[in-house]
Amino acid sequence: MKTIKVYKIGGKLIDDSSNLAAFLSDFSKIKGPKVLIHGGGVVADKYLKSMGITAQKVDGRRITDLPTMEVVSMVYAGLINKKIVASLQSNGVNALGLSGADLNLLPAKKRVHSEIDFGWVGDLNNHSWGENHAIWSLLESEVVPVICSITHDSQGNLLNTNADTIAAQVVKNLSENYEVSFHYCIDFPGVMHDDQVIEEIEEKGMKQLIKSNVVTDGMIPKLETAFKAAKFTKETTIQHWNQLEQHSAGTKIKAS
Amino acid sequence: MKTIKVYKIGGKLIDDSSNLAAFLSDFSKIKGPKVLIHGGGVVADKYLKSMGITAQKVDGRRITDLPTMEVVSMVYAGLINKKIVASLQSNGVNALGLSGADLNLLPAKKRVHSEIDFGWVGDLNNHSWGENHAIWSLLESEVVPVICSITHDSQGNLLNTNADTIAAQVVKNLSENYEVSFHYCIDFPGVMHDDQVIEEIEEKGMKQLIKSNVVTDGMIPKLETAFKAAKFTKETTIQHWNQLEQHSAGTKIKAS
Repeated sequence: MKTIKVYKIGGKLIDDSSNLAAFLSDFSKIKGPKVLIHGGGVVADKYLKSMGITAQKVDGRRITDLPTMEVVSMVYAGLINKKIVASLQSNGVNALGLSGADLNLLPAKKRVHSEIDFGWVGDLNNHSWGENHAIWSLLESEVVPVICSITHDSQGNLLNTNADTIAAQVVKNLSENYEVSFHYCIDFPGVMHDDQVIEEIEEKGMKQLIKSNVVTDGMIPKLETAFKAAKFTKETTIQHWNQLEQHSAGTKIKAS
Repeated sequence: MKTIKVYKIGGKLIDDSSNLAAFLSDFSKIKGPKVLIHGGGVVADKYLKSMGITAQKVDGRRITDLPTMEVVSMVYAGLINKKIVASLQSNGVNALGLSGADLNLLPAKKRVHSEIDFGWVGDLNNHSWGENHAIWSLLESEVVPVICSITHDSQGNLLNTNADTIAAQVVKNLSENYEVSFHYCIDFPGVMHDDQVIEEIEEKGMKQLIKSNVVTDGMIPKLETAFKAAKFTKETTIQHWNQLEQHSAGTKIKAS
């Protein structure tokens, strides 16, 4: 089976243009089929603020109203995605920017909740691409998909979907034709404990780390994403975005 | 030779969501390979205004500074393009949104002028796609490209390029593998003279129409685009966006 490498990057890296350029330069040097997945919440928040759009909240939970959704789509799919694509092209990588609407890559459903309308937030349909999806021949012709965290409801509406969830789904879908290695890139050398990188975490170990407050806050969903993806990979790491080329960098995630 | 239909739509149609939906519904019904090209200046201007970004001018000529370029890319590639793609997907069309950076579709050069720096404006390189470009297999697998008027300079920068110029280039490139018909969609039934549609215009006739002020202002670049494209088509029309399905609608443009 052929192998493919999937990388997920987040808002803080994306918001720093020189760090992003350094990452994309390293990413360009990775050999073989590869995919990049990105969010961009930090940048979107800045634009929302500059446009005077304040986050709506119901019971303390953030709502994606239509003006917010439009700005999120603009920033993710029109600004960040295209900047990344242009940068990769300048590095000789034949990048193709994709939202979940393009090629019907990531169909989703508007989140319905009995009490709260979260607005234009999408939960993925767990849709397999099938044998004849255009993505396979694109990958074979050395095109590098750059996927942003916008999905669609197949009824003409764009939806905002968590980039981690998308990464896990993309890994799962790719695993039908490829042996996947997944690299969740963060601003630290890995999952840390007392200033040391934890070399390897098993699912049981994760629960223990959360229980004992070694892993807290934003790291919890990252770990959960990594474990969700790891079931479909031969290798999953949580690692610093500046250590792409170091083979054993970061924390290895071992699915049970 | 296989045939392909290329449609170009503009800012006013795009800004009216019910008209756009009607157009996209008609476009979805067109059989065979097809391509849609769009700008979106009217929408971009609204966003620029809401963000307090005023157009810079030098000697009365508009300059695309970096903040403007970023908003233009957001609106064209992230908002309009993705809305169109989502809408087409909901109509059963396997649309793929593309900027000129994606797949290196439309490389361009930043416009250099001895006296004025126009900013991030791109003039196309007249780049042929070549035999092995991914676009050909995408078209063969019934993917419908939706191309927005953003290009790149192959050095990592996005550029703002006139959507008409892009349409003419796309028609030319497609003509290497397809027999192309090109439909320039406007808000009128065609090129008008005394409330009548002019049925056919030849290049010599165009010059006469301009000279005699029958064709003025915004219609001049439209006609010029149509003639530029017509050299590479078996059929070129300037027609109303609501008459896609009428076979002999609009004004036929005859290249000499």
